[in-house]
Amino acid sequence: MDISALRSANPDHWMRAAAIRALTLDAVHAANSGHSGMPIGMADVATVLFEKHLKFDAAAPLWPDRDRFILSAGHGSMLIYSLLYLTGYQQVTLEELRNFRQWGAKTAGHPENFLLDGVETTTGPLGQGLANSVGFAMAEEMQRATFGRKIVDHFTYVMAGDGCLMEGVSQEAITLAGRQRLGRLIVMWDNNNITIDGQVSLADDTNQVARFKSAGWHVQEIDGHDPEAIDAALAAAKKSRKPSMIACKTHIALGHAAQDTSKGHGALTDAGQLAAAKQAYGWTGGPFEVPEAIKAQWEEIGRRGAPEHAAWQERMAELSERRRAEFERRLAGDVPKKLSAVIRALKKQVSESTPKVATRKSSEMVLELVNPVMGETVGGSADLSGSNNTQTADMSVFDVDNRKGRYVHWGIREHGMAAAMNGMALHGGIRPYGGTFMAFTDYARPAMRLAALMKIPSVFVMTHDSIGLGEDGPTHQPVEHLAISRATPNTMVFRPCDTVETAEAWELALTAKATPSVLSLTRQGVPTLRNQHKVKNLTAQGAYVLAEAEAGKRQAILIATGSEVAIAMEARATLEAEGLGTRVVSMPCMELFAEQDEAYRRRVLPAGPVRVGVEAAVRQGWDRWLCGERGRETKAGFIGMNSFGASAPAEVLYEKFGITAEAVVNEVKRLLG
Amino acid sequence: MDISALRSANPDHWMRAAAIRALTLDAVHAANSGHSGMPIGMADVATVLFEKHLKFDAAAPLWPDRDRFILSAGHGSMLIYSLLYLTGYQQVTLEELRNFRQWGAKTAGHPENFLLDGVETTTGPLGQGLANSVGFAMAEEMQRATFGRKIVDHFTYVMAGDGCLMEGVSQEAITLAGRQRLGRLIVMWDNNNITIDGQVSLADDTNQVARFKSAGWHVQEIDGHDPEAIDAALAAAKKSRKPSMIACKTHIALGHAAQDTSKGHGALTDAGQLAAAKQAYGWTGGPFEVPEAIKAQWEEIGRRGAPEHAAWQERMAELSERRRAEFERRLAGDVPKKLSAVIRALKKQVSESTPKVATRKSSEMVLELVNPVMGETVGGSADLSGSNNTQTADMSVFDVDNRKGRYVHWGIREHGMAAAMNGMALHGGIRPYGGTFMAFTDYARPAMRLAALMKIPSVFVMTHDSIGLGEDGPTHQPVEHLAISRATPNTMVFRPCDTVETAEAWELALTAKATPSVLSLTRQGVPTLRNQHKVKNLTAQGAYVLAEAEAGKRQAILIATGSEVAIAMEARATLEAEGLGTRVVSMPCMELFAEQDEAYRRRVLPAGPVRVGVEAAVRQGWDRWLCGERGRETKAGFIGMNSFGASAPAEVLYEKFGITAEAVVNEVKRLLG
Repeated sequence: MDISALRSANPDHWMRAAAIRALTLDAVHAANSGHSGMPIGMADVATVLFEKHLKFDAAAPLWPDRDRFILSAGHGSMLIYSLLYLTGYQQVTLEELRNFRQWGAKTAGHPENFLLDGVETTTGPLGQGLANSVGFAMAEEMQRATFGRKIVDHFTYVMAGDGCLMEGVSQEAITLAGRQRLGRLIVMWDNNNITIDGQVSLADDTNQVARFKSAGWHVQEIDGHDPEAIDAALAAAKKSRKPSMIACKTHIALGHAAQDTSKGHGALTDAGQLAAAKQAYGWTGGPFEVPEAIKAQWEEIGRRGAPEHAAWQERMAELSERRRAEFERRLAGDVPKKLSAVIRALKKQVSESTPKVATRKSSEMVLELVNPVMGETVGGSADLSGSNNTQTADMSVFDVDNRKGRYVHWGIREHGMAAAMNGMALHGGIRPYGGTFMAFTDYARPAMRLAALMKIPSVFVMTHDSIGLGEDGPTHQPVEHLAISRATPNTMVFRPCDTVETAEAWELALTAKATPSVLSLTRQGVPTLRNQHKVKNLTAQGAYVLAEAEAGKRQAILIATGSEVAIAMEARATLEAEGLGTRVVSMPCMELFAEQDEAYRRRVLPAGPVRVGVEAAVRQGWDRWLCGERGRETKAGFIGMNSFGASAPAEVLYEKFGITAEAVVNEVKRLLG
Repeated sequence: MDISALRSANPDHWMRAAAIRALTLDAVHAANSGHSGMPIGMADVATVLFEKHLKFDAAAPLWPDRDRFILSAGHGSMLIYSLLYLTGYQQVTLEELRNFRQWGAKTAGHPENFLLDGVETTTGPLGQGLANSVGFAMAEEMQRATFGRKIVDHFTYVMAGDGCLMEGVSQEAITLAGRQRLGRLIVMWDNNNITIDGQVSLADDTNQVARFKSAGWHVQEIDGHDPEAIDAALAAAKKSRKPSMIACKTHIALGHAAQDTSKGHGALTDAGQLAAAKQAYGWTGGPFEVPEAIKAQWEEIGRRGAPEHAAWQERMAELSERRRAEFERRLAGDVPKKLSAVIRALKKQVSESTPKVATRKSSEMVLELVNPVMGETVGGSADLSGSNNTQTADMSVFDVDNRKGRYVHWGIREHGMAAAMNGMALHGGIRPYGGTFMAFTDYARPAMRLAALMKIPSVFVMTHDSIGLGEDGPTHQPVEHLAISRATPNTMVFRPCDTVETAEAWELALTAKATPSVLSLTRQGVPTLRNQHKVKNLTAQGAYVLAEAEAGKRQAILIATGSEVAIAMEARATLEAEGLGTRVVSMPCMELFAEQDEAYRRRVLPAGPVRVGVEAAVRQGWDRWLCGERGRETKAGFIGMNSFGASAPAEVLYEKFGITAEAVVNEVKRLLG
């Protein structure tokens, strides 16, 4: 393709865009890895967006009312790093560009929200950014409804590639956005017809325009290298009351020998081809060299939003003290002072004489008290509202005509829900929680991992957390899902045994600022077991002595979680009656227990007595507590699952799979010899 | 809604369909749980399908050329159980219907392929059946191209609900089917506008007709209670060369007080309402009672395919002995005799002087030899063919004009790929394997779990299996994914250390009949370490002594997998040089090691020496081998990951995260005190 016509048609624009292209080539060359083609292909779209539409102030990357820019095609990370450098974000220096993809650099292979303020969300796993963006746009609507248009009034712009649109989560995202008429959401599709394996048509021939229209989107098709067309399309998209998709026909790796090929998708490192491409661009700068005039134009773009930012600050100053403090508290992710009082009050309401209650119901009891005092919580469920017990009386349903609604009917879209929740948390000002059956952790999993990696406090309410689910059978019964979440770094997995622990788990989940939580909750009723020490949050220690050995010498320690703590207590009663001193340790959060100092952990799990773990799930993850981290501590056993479940009433399943007090007693005796 | 008009318009049809409705009401009532609305709503469609279109012989549920019927909306399991009972499948007796959802019944809460021959695939997790069906239809095309239309000539029919269509995986499935022009795939959408939370419009207003058309489907819209319309639509769908979607407008729980409500989705157990519904249906039979005349009509339907089945058997008998044997071998899932010879030959080709090679490349070497001798393998990748090394020279690409192609460009659809692979395996005659990056196990996970539950030998080729992936960074670096797969029951997770173990792992994966395999393969080169005992498949034992302690007394055992075995060997050299006798155990498959008898496990991991595990992943799952299952065996340590990775070259990451021979040596010394 001859690009000289493009160059001459809009020479100033061309050179600004060429700066992105040249920096991309240089950084990928220096790293000897990365993805050149996407930033080169989308440089024109990005240039026009940043120059004429995106509301931002490079000097204040965290300005709450900035437009959000999400690079869903995260492999094109050099696009965003180039833009941040060119417009003058302090964090992205030339040195950072030179260190692209190296240890300690903020310019990681894929953009990481926790490394750079200018990166709104971590992308790379395809489709995630697009699905996050739905949450961003919903959060904007909610905040605008709450704090008014003077304070909250921004757009969410997304760049998505063919890969993003092929991933199933994209369908969940675009149908959600369409249903909710998220008019502030604008997606620019990098329509370059190339994937890693070859042309898109190898694997897909979807009519994307028709597809987006079927989901209620406003759709435009443009030449993604024509700055005027890009400008006009963005202007039209901003006016649309529907979410907008702009299909930008582009050439991947434009102007490079690898243009329009799958090779162009990857790392273009050949020095000769690199030089030829720069020449075609009319680029005279050396490696990482941006001519001063061009850099100056970009820096002016970086300052373009400063007056608007200042005006916003003035409007903020006009808010009442109370209102401003509330806005800032929510944004900072601080909990209101009332929270702990409310949690304590609930804990005191229950006692051992309280009738059995499922912990999913306990969770609802907590939320009924918490939601009125925390206006930033947003609840929801993937079409299991009545089962997950996530909706509370004070929460109206978020909808096109009720943007103040704080309850979201996510539909049967676990993955899209989790990803959009992440987007809300990343947007700021919202604390999202959402529910599904625990077995469907599998569907939500890619976004749950990213919550952990991105250090955001999304709360996943996973009910029906074992064979206790009963008749729906093994497809719906989690057995490995506790292990899955526990295996994930930076994730708190709470499996509370009763209402008291459920309240404590919620308090911890809602107080967390940089860690997502998984609440593993029962379908079936469980007794209230925590009758003492209700002021202190014992769940914060991860595990604690629920019942001490009484009959003489302590010979056994039973460690249990959730619905199985009651089984351990029952086993303890039998063992004590037979003169075998038995301690019961409730362990609602292994991760928090692991964080305690060794002295505390030793006090809870002293060497000597035999140990039996009890959890209606696979053993994986338990041996650390059963054997001790350095091994050799004691004899240990485990009562749980070692297969998938089955379809039958819950009580029958517990009996048939041998998760009973009797089995625990027998295991203790076997270990004691 | 007054259903008397429906009754009188087609009285015979009505009563046949009413049999399904009545049995559903009775079974859900008896179980006091289940889903009544869907079977009642789709009874007319199902009746016409079974009566006039579905090719089957109730006396021979496994007839290879039967049409496949897939109930993607698996919660409506009573629909399929009713049909199987009514048409006379032996396995589904009246007793089974009475025991719906009870322990030991074949009539589980959701339909399970491993309990009933008439159930083609396990469904319940929404969208899975629809995604499986794409694999079924592809398998049919492949088999028809290979064995001819006389032997293979059938359709795949799917019933899908609103939930199936909302799940993202449905988009991956329908775009795949559209791209591949799977004209033998016919989807009947139960368009009832109801989900658990309420009306579909609460969460979704997608124009499904337009959506399917955008993916290249043939679409019809009909009244799902009009038997003539249903018949005509099915006839038209069968003629279409595109995949077909029939939008069947239905009333959930038709004729019941809960009709057209979300309550109708669930268990309708009220005795009075049940009686009223039966009366509205004109149903006079008592509980589980089907009037003889109606049962006889249904049984005739069950025999309708018998002549066609007999004719097929005759055509089979006309095949050459060799051809018939090949068809039957593939269907039985038996491997050809040549396989083990080919594997052995490859193992002998390599030695310690072979240059380093990545195990993903070793895997390609294996496949280059295996694919020519196993015509039933079907390879593919989710757009990472060159990275996963899954395509071999003899494999042409499966496409509309090349149905003999055995390589599938799945596109960027990990979930759809895994689910369609499962469909192929369930169809029979095909051994599917498919690749992606190991971190994207997350996307494929719902289908990977189902492969394990369904007892099918899908092979998931997961490359770039650690921080060894390097610069792409933490989104692309698995750290918890080995633990995730290992936590899943009935899954073999292979992490081979070199070409020899890779060949052995493939041999085991391809020989398995009821267990899926995950192959965890490196991006980076590793040395050949297995230089002895190449005839026997040592990987089959799960773990074995790769190098024995030599310097005096055995003081340490290093247990390692995959790329870290070389690190363990390097550490051993240092320790031995210092006089510390060190054994290295290679553990390519924990699950197989767990299956060995205790004597063997003791021989490999005797009590006494300190143990250090080495794996570039989280520790979860290791303690069992480090501490011993009953604890107290020895002192133990672990060198691996306890956080997400980072973006940098692989060697730098190993150094920075402390996964080095030096770290292993230090850990051994620390444990030895």
